[in-house]
Amino acid sequence: MTKPKIGIINVTGYAGVELARILCQHPAVELASVTGRSAAGQKLEAIFPHLAGIDLNIEAEPGKVELAFSAMPHGESAKVVTPLLEKDVKIVDISADFRLKQAEEYQPWYGFIHPTPQLLSEAVYGLTELYRSQIASARLVANPGCYPTGAILALAPALKAGIIESDIIIDSKSGVSGAGRTVSLRTHYAEVNEDATAYALEGHRHLPEMVQELGKLGPGKPAAVTFVPHLIPMTRGILTTAYARLVTGKIASGKKGLEELKKLYLDFYKNEPFVRVVDSPPHTKHTWGNNLCLVHPAIDERTGRLIVISAIDNLVKGAAGQAVQNMNLILGLPETSGLEALAIYP
Amino acid sequence: MTKPKIGIINVTGYAGVELARILCQHPAVELASVTGRSAAGQKLEAIFPHLAGIDLNIEAEPGKVELAFSAMPHGESAKVVTPLLEKDVKIVDISADFRLKQAEEYQPWYGFIHPTPQLLSEAVYGLTELYRSQIASARLVANPGCYPTGAILALAPALKAGIIESDIIIDSKSGVSGAGRTVSLRTHYAEVNEDATAYALEGHRHLPEMVQELGKLGPGKPAAVTFVPHLIPMTRGILTTAYARLVTGKIASGKKGLEELKKLYLDFYKNEPFVRVVDSPPHTKHTWGNNLCLVHPAIDERTGRLIVISAIDNLVKGAAGQAVQNMNLILGLPETSGLEALAIYP
Amino acid sequence: MTKPKIGIINVTGYAGVELARILCQHPAVELASVTGRSAAGQKLEAIFPHLAGIDLNIEAEPGKVELAFSAMPHGESAKVVTPLLEKDVKIVDISADFRLKQAEEYQPWYGFIHPTPQLLSEAVYGLTELYRSQIASARLVANPGCYPTGAILALAPALKAGIIESDIIIDSKSGVSGAGRTVSLRTHYAEVNEDATAYALEGHRHLPEMVQELGKLGPGKPAAVTFVPHLIPMTRGILTTAYARLVTGKIASGKKGLEELKKLYLDFYKNEPFVRVVDSPPHTKHTWGNNLCLVHPAIDERTGRLIVISAIDNLVKGAAGQAVQNMNLILGLPETSGLEALAIYP
Amino acid sequence: MTKPKIGIINVTGYAGVELARILCQHPAVELASVTGRSAAGQKLEAIFPHLAGIDLNIEAEPGKVELAFSAMPHGESAKVVTPLLEKDVKIVDISADFRLKQAEEYQPWYGFIHPTPQLLSEAVYGLTELYRSQIASARLVANPGCYPTGAILALAPALKAGIIESDIIIDSKSGVSGAGRTVSLRTHYAEVNEDATAYALEGHRHLPEMVQELGKLGPGKPAAVTFVPHLIPMTRGILTTAYARLVTGKIASGKKGLEELKKLYLDFYKNEPFVRVVDSPPHTKHTWGNNLCLVHPAIDERTGRLIVISAIDNLVKGAAGQAVQNMNLILGLPETSGLEALAIYP
Repeated sequence: MTKPKIGIINVTGYAGVELARILCQHPAVELASVTGRSAAGQKLEAIFPHLAGIDLNIEAEPGKVELAFSAMPHGESAKVVTPLLEKDVKIVDISADFRLKQAEEYQPWYGFIHPTPQLLSEAVYGLTELYRSQIASARLVANPGCYPTGAILALAPALKAGIIESDIIIDSKSGVSGAGRTVSLRTHYAEVNEDATAYALEGHRHLPEMVQELGKLGPGKPAAVTFVPHLIPMTRGILTTAYARLVTGKIASGKKGLEELKKLYLDFYKNEPFVRVVDSPPHTKHTWGNNLCLVHPAIDERTGRLIVISAIDNLVKGAAGQAVQNMNLILGLPETSGLEALAIYP
Repeated sequence: MTKPKIGIINVTGYAGVELARILCQHPAVELASVTGRSAAGQKLEAIFPHLAGIDLNIEAEPGKVELAFSAMPHGESAKVVTPLLEKDVKIVDISADFRLKQAEEYQPWYGFIHPTPQLLSEAVYGLTELYRSQIASARLVANPGCYPTGAILALAPALKAGIIESDIIIDSKSGVSGAGRTVSLRTHYAEVNEDATAYALEGHRHLPEMVQELGKLGPGKPAAVTFVPHLIPMTRGILTTAYARLVTGKIASGKKGLEELKKLYLDFYKNEPFVRVVDSPPHTKHTWGNNLCLVHPAIDERTGRLIVISAIDNLVKGAAGQAVQNMNLILGLPETSGLEALAIYP
Repeated sequence: MTKPKIGIINVTGYAGVELARILCQHPAVELASVTGRSAAGQKLEAIFPHLAGIDLNIEAEPGKVELAFSAMPHGESAKVVTPLLEKDVKIVDISADFRLKQAEEYQPWYGFIHPTPQLLSEAVYGLTELYRSQIASARLVANPGCYPTGAILALAPALKAGIIESDIIIDSKSGVSGAGRTVSLRTHYAEVNEDATAYALEGHRHLPEMVQELGKLGPGKPAAVTFVPHLIPMTRGILTTAYARLVTGKIASGKKGLEELKKLYLDFYKNEPFVRVVDSPPHTKHTWGNNLCLVHPAIDERTGRLIVISAIDNLVKGAAGQAVQNMNLILGLPETSGLEALAIYP
Repeated sequence: MTKPKIGIINVTGYAGVELARILCQHPAVELASVTGRSAAGQKLEAIFPHLAGIDLNIEAEPGKVELAFSAMPHGESAKVVTPLLEKDVKIVDISADFRLKQAEEYQPWYGFIHPTPQLLSEAVYGLTELYRSQIASARLVANPGCYPTGAILALAPALKAGIIESDIIIDSKSGVSGAGRTVSLRTHYAEVNEDATAYALEGHRHLPEMVQELGKLGPGKPAAVTFVPHLIPMTRGILTTAYARLVTGKIASGKKGLEELKKLYLDFYKNEPFVRVVDSPPHTKHTWGNNLCLVHPAIDERTGRLIVISAIDNLVKGAAGQAVQNMNLILGLPETSGLEALAIYP
């Protein structure tokens, strides 16, 4: 039996190369084509020595594949992806180009007029745990942003159950690989080592994505989301701490309430291979290199607030791993195929 | 003119040794005595090579001094400090033993019955910017916790001006030195490097201190504070992100509101040598080794929320530096004396 | 077909838990038993959340297994292992207890009288690349130390070919996980972060192991080895820089000599799945989590010296990975079984 | 009394801004002028917030000063500095442009024809401990490279005393700030964090400088130096481990030899305020932010080798601090003026 051929468009960023790492080791597909403009003509292993032994040349244009991942920059991905769709290539898009349902949001948030707005309604938002059945039959999946992945998985059970108000604060701490492989003073080692800072207070691009998806989970009215991302000195990992007021009377007080809350989360995620509800605040280290999202819900009794903490590896569940999870669904493979590696600790 | 003699009780922790570093270089006092039980009998420089050249022996008991800093553990400090007060030694206590005004809070939060509750009303809370005049005439100053320092300085102008509700979320990210010099698996390099985690969700010991002090600043009713501390992989620094709902009608909307807010903060701190209101989210790196608190207030227009971010070095403004600032006031020295060093960057 | 049952004695250190991670995912064996005195009675996943889903209890005594890894401390391992050998359990010993061939060396270097010196001649030194055939038929394999693994693989081709003198300098830089999971001030985050230091100048315990094995590779006379280990602020990885004078006339000068050298190394390792001769100085990052040793030989023309640099993950090729490589040989499995994961980058 | 006016040419790199930090706090000089092409017209504090409060504008051209530091790139510094010398401005040049005595070495090592070779003999090599008197009367000081500073101070006493052969290995481990503030993939956080690597095996630019200066210290014949620099994941610090064979009969064996060695080093540096001979392997952390070089000499009895380890902060004693030390001598100020701050630990 021949394995389906898979391509990666723009393999040279961190999400792209992480896709390559996962797909090279995937038991049921063949990574057949990788592209990257600046590096076209070189061997993949020449640029990424950790992939030594993988015999692939970086091409300027994608070869013939059944499914392609696009790791192109925002605004460029839609242009590259559209002609492939027309050739019946399935697409999992790592960029933001198909995440937002309202075409007019691309101008203010991303600074471009969407070139193919007609595809936005067809594209399925690739948060696998929420859209599993649609993804399985999709030809275009918009893989979620790293921050929305951690935030939405933290809040979905509570919002869906109606136990919290839709006025939400999301405080995320991200490792530096989330800023990509393009060099900048902001990601220069001596600047970011031994430093913590917040950024994008005026509105991070992942905010409309959170508002859109959290709004769908809640009681009908739009979610009022304050989102502050932070950069902290580590390579991988996003820790998200989410805060929302509990709706009065929905959950018991004291220890009983905590048990109800935990049961609610355990039930919500009971069949999920990649979400784990944990009993103590999770460590990003426990997701290092794997596709898990660890979720810990808690109650601040003094103030009547829900606190939920989630941890992911931003390059795996926050990008390449989730993309492969979606590919597995599209191709009818077991959802965990190629994604079963344990986190590397310490 | 002879310089006042100063002592440090329990010099062997990170706050203690940071006090020693600052006091050794202080132009107007003499560090005359340092104690430390486990290390008694050794030279200070034998244990702390960065203090090489400082000719001091670590003693079991404090020598004759005019003012002593206590860096004893919580619960032990009060016992050590009380007899010194009786001998007219002024005290700046780095521990929590005199921070809370209600003696009965020590049992639930710190696990001990306060041995000298009569001193609690006399002790002055040593957040210099808020209690400057009382500190100047105090004989017992309770130096604030590291988290409360960053959080209260972030929120004081807004609370005092009545522009926010007293329902507040404080999300802090701390370097690992805040956990002290005592070894533990939690602070073992391989565990904490490349890791981020939240802790003390059930209630951190600095919470009652924040509630007490934020409550005094607000409109009369107790503050409802949710506080979640996080440990991130760096040695020094606390970044605090505080969130509170703006009171309707108190501040303009749009750009004008932002200007009003900034003016309010600038006015509040206009004479403060160690608080700097900054125009962009501050970096902990810009406080590395100095006594500054950087504060950046912002408004989330979409949700009507105030966001304030503060950055301090947890061992300086969050501990030893602020303690010396308080000592300067008590001794009638210029407040900035010995504390003027610039941050070390990068 | 039932898989062979495997045990880990003392799973609670970093080498032990890394063995567990690899063996859990190994396709051809069953991790059936793990022990650990302090943690006996607990679930493995309770102590190591990254192993969540692995259903194993930590026992006080090893269960019935075909082969056991001992990750006991030096001096204790021999005592635990000997009775197992008598019950026909094959042993791969991660400790140093069977690495040295001369029993009398244990007293000066490790501080104990060897309890079972008669086993030393039988034990096979488990540097797979050098002792492959003996390992395949061994019942007791002494897994090499992390530093010797990197150093010997760097030097073996040159020594064997007689192109260098046996007067050798080995300068190694190790991540902190090499110091183990037991807490100490030396591995306390705030002490070791932003620090580099050398240690064990008086003679590291891995030195006699290097001298023994490098001596066997050379021209007959004992190797004169200066070895200085350094601790640097990262979790995993050992970078070793080895220096030795080239024997006159053995290798050409200039570019030709460099080609001869490279060919010599490529030939020596041509069938090795886990040693890769690379064209530029290797990065430890490119071995993060995998079993590779990257080796880069170079010539300092100005001084007539060979410089060889090697990079390994100290917990994989330097400990658990190599141990599994040896297990594979003993059990007649493909040598790379369970060890094929690519390094995780960045 | 007016303080001498001082300038910094090219303040925007790490050496330049570290000069600014030190000079701003210097009690006996006035930092009067800073230049930087890309940032000309901006306030210094706008680019470097840790210098907030320092009221200086970055100019395109240096103002009128008595002494200027040049932190221009190699090859450009000589051009900038020569006209200033003609205007009687004293120069401390941080670049390499006046370090080498042989003009013809600039072409192979730095890739440019030296524009003012006639100045090379006049320029004094600014390793203060070796050239103190010449520096005091110099008008042009060539501040040493960071690696040569640590290496030469480690070896000078032994070479001068003739106890080692001039065949030397220097293995240095540097923090990433040594690579400068210009962004590159090599210094991108996610690439260099959790990584160690060697570089410049073909010959680092600091090698001819070491050969030149070590040669002068030795017995007359040129030094044969193998130098391998390494990049390790920390911001500041260089740890250098130097190896050389002991000359037979010059030093006793055993404990007595070690005492002789230590005495030799202590005597050599007995009047040096910034070199400290220490009893155990030094930590770079103990030089963090200060001008010390810590030196630890040891003997490897087994092989008859001297091992010397030195630690410096590459931006202070390895660049800006030593430059200010030299300025102090030129201006007739106390050598330690402005350089007395203790290292910041932890």
